[in-house]
Amino acid sequence: MTRSQSRTRLLLSLVVEAGDPRLVAWRERCDPVELWHAVVRGGPEIPDPWREAAAEAPRRADHALRRAEEAGARWLVPGSAAWPVALDDLDEVDGIGHVAGAPLGLWVRGGGDLSSIAAAPVAVVGARGCTTYGAEAASDIAADCADQGHAVVSGAAFGIDACAHRGALLAGGPTVAVLACGVDVDYPRAHAALLRRIGEEGLVISEFAPGAEPQRHRFLVRNRLIAALSVGVVVVEAARRSGSLNTLHWADQLGRTTMVVPGPITSQASCGTHLAVRDGKALLVTSGRDVVADTFGVVDADLPAISPAARRVWLRLGTEPQPAEQVAAALRLSPVAVLRALRELERHAVVAGDENGWRRDRVPGGTQGVG
Amino acid sequence: MTRSQSRTRLLLSLVVEAGDPRLVAWRERCDPVELWHAVVRGGPEIPDPWREAAAEAPRRADHALRRAEEAGARWLVPGSAAWPVALDDLDEVDGIGHVAGAPLGLWVRGGGDLSSIAAAPVAVVGARGCTTYGAEAASDIAADCADQGHAVVSGAAFGIDACAHRGALLAGGPTVAVLACGVDVDYPRAHAALLRRIGEEGLVISEFAPGAEPQRHRFLVRNRLIAALSVGVVVVEAARRSGSLNTLHWADQLGRTTMVVPGPITSQASCGTHLAVRDGKALLVTSGRDVVADTFGVVDADLPAISPAARRVWLRLGTEPQPAEQVAAALRLSPVAVLRALRELERHAVVAGDENGWRRDRVPGGTQGVG
Repeated sequence: MTRSQSRTRLLLSLVVEAGDPRLVAWRERCDPVELWHAVVRGGPEIPDPWREAAAEAPRRADHALRRAEEAGARWLVPGSAAWPVALDDLDEVDGIGHVAGAPLGLWVRGGGDLSSIAAAPVAVVGARGCTTYGAEAASDIAADCADQGHAVVSGAAFGIDACAHRGALLAGGPTVAVLACGVDVDYPRAHAALLRRIGEEGLVISEFAPGAEPQRHRFLVRNRLIAALSVGVVVVEAARRSGSLNTLHWADQLGRTTMVVPGPITSQASCGTHLAVRDGKALLVTSGRDVVADTFGVVDADLPAISPAARRVWLRLGTEPQPAEQVAAALRLSPVAVLRALRELERHAVVAGDENGWRRDRVPGGTQGVG
Repeated sequence: MTRSQSRTRLLLSLVVEAGDPRLVAWRERCDPVELWHAVVRGGPEIPDPWREAAAEAPRRADHALRRAEEAGARWLVPGSAAWPVALDDLDEVDGIGHVAGAPLGLWVRGGGDLSSIAAAPVAVVGARGCTTYGAEAASDIAADCADQGHAVVSGAAFGIDACAHRGALLAGGPTVAVLACGVDVDYPRAHAALLRRIGEEGLVISEFAPGAEPQRHRFLVRNRLIAALSVGVVVVEAARRSGSLNTLHWADQLGRTTMVVPGPITSQASCGTHLAVRDGKALLVTSGRDVVADTFGVVDADLPAISPAARRVWLRLGTEPQPAEQVAAALRLSPVAVLRALRELERHAVVAGDENGWRRDRVPGGTQGVG
């Protein structure tokens, strides 16, 4: 990844609205540098607003980078070591509504390493107007997940999102806020202190440039990143047409584990979650332990004492065999490191390999908690 | 069914404890009359307690019949027109624990016709020590089911059971209490008035003779009748080792629809119901409408205006074809009546027939509410 490629992606991100499905079509035909040249040339295939915005883009890019520097944020693009490759899955699936595709890049604020925080994160999202029951459930589940070493991803909104972040922070675990505005914009205003703390102990990320204001459409665009970044998504309270169900839909589309927390049938706030279970769109979970068991097939407490690399490899494996090289690429580990981890897991008799690759075998620590 | 066969079954019921799996083994070899003779003769294969009890049985039978007459109850056996044939399914499945088999007969108190009340009943059961939330949910769901014409079966216990009966009664629907004691025994004492009302507007039934006291074991024995009598069983609140889960287990064994109502994850009373969903043992339902949709494949409101016979036939059909004679036998209708009902349903285009028999085709009233 050269500096100029990073700059080109930044320029494009200021010209093409995030999640625009036309970008997916273009990227199938050419790389970002070629697309940028096409936009600047302004051929007949280029939408007018892109061409018009292109003239202003270099100046706006400089402005965005200056704001980012002031806020302690950086611009991250695919190919850099810190890039969470899970986001690239967005280019492999169909869009939802008029939103599609992986982001051109990400603005990241916070000291953490996104790729390591994002090794096995779980998203906890839900209704803004949650009940006290939902608030307690979200906070408990997020704390449980964080306790077991999983970063908690959410959207920093009022209600469930805020409880999820706070639960993770209270448990001393990392948490990632994915915003529908710039990483330096305190939205909602009342969450300025929460966002500052997340920036200090976790990460605040966004595909929108610093200074960008949240817009209605951007919340839906943002939701796909929450889903893609996470191995599993839990919805705690959602009314029948809640935005969180959009995140669940993305998670389903991306093959992530989709989960919901039940609640009283007398509560409108649990209507959407119950419906998701009835429609077979989500598993029912009642605790952080359930979430981890359903998402990773085993709760961490059951894993034998293994090296962090072995744990990452194990979490990546499924019941279908995968070639070691594929696991290495997905985890951004060297093939040698992956093979070493696989040998370690083999000694614990929790993986099995054959000519088709490697898969999980026995569940560590017995049969409990297996999804 | 002759009077002497009915008498023989009554005598046997006073000698062999209800649900004794040894009775199932015997009945595979001989009919009740032959078994009674063997018991009286007291061969080496006959357990001592049976032989000893046989001597007292005629006197106890007369006593039971006298008590029944005083209480306005009758003794019902298989083969009589009022016998609910669904109970015979118990002879086709494995037992649970040390309980197995269809009952030898039933004591029935109340003015209703058991076979017609039992055309499409739904059981609503749950924890004795329920929460106010559970009480409300049980009452609402039972009322909804009764409103749609389904009798509500339950066990007349404290908590959920009582709320289920009361919900059905309030909706003006029939309700059936299946007891673990005699139909003339007010257990629990505090439910004397409730049991009287159920006897007036619905039915109180038991396989234990009038005057029989409830015993711990008998509740488990009784549970299989609640499940067998019902097309679907809903559990509202159950702790991890609740007796209601035993009823759910029987329902599963018998191929009945198994359902549970979710609740707050912070409530121990919903622990067992959530676990049943997670284990794939039950569907999650949030309303009487869900219960009817999941049990009968369609809510009654969606069925076109059809004759009661056609409705009974439709409820009996599934997605797998069944010969008309089989449907007739199961519903105790004449083959001619069933064929007439099928023609009626065919005009509504909701059934389809081929050389393998008849099955549900299109769902009446659209695609909603289909299980």
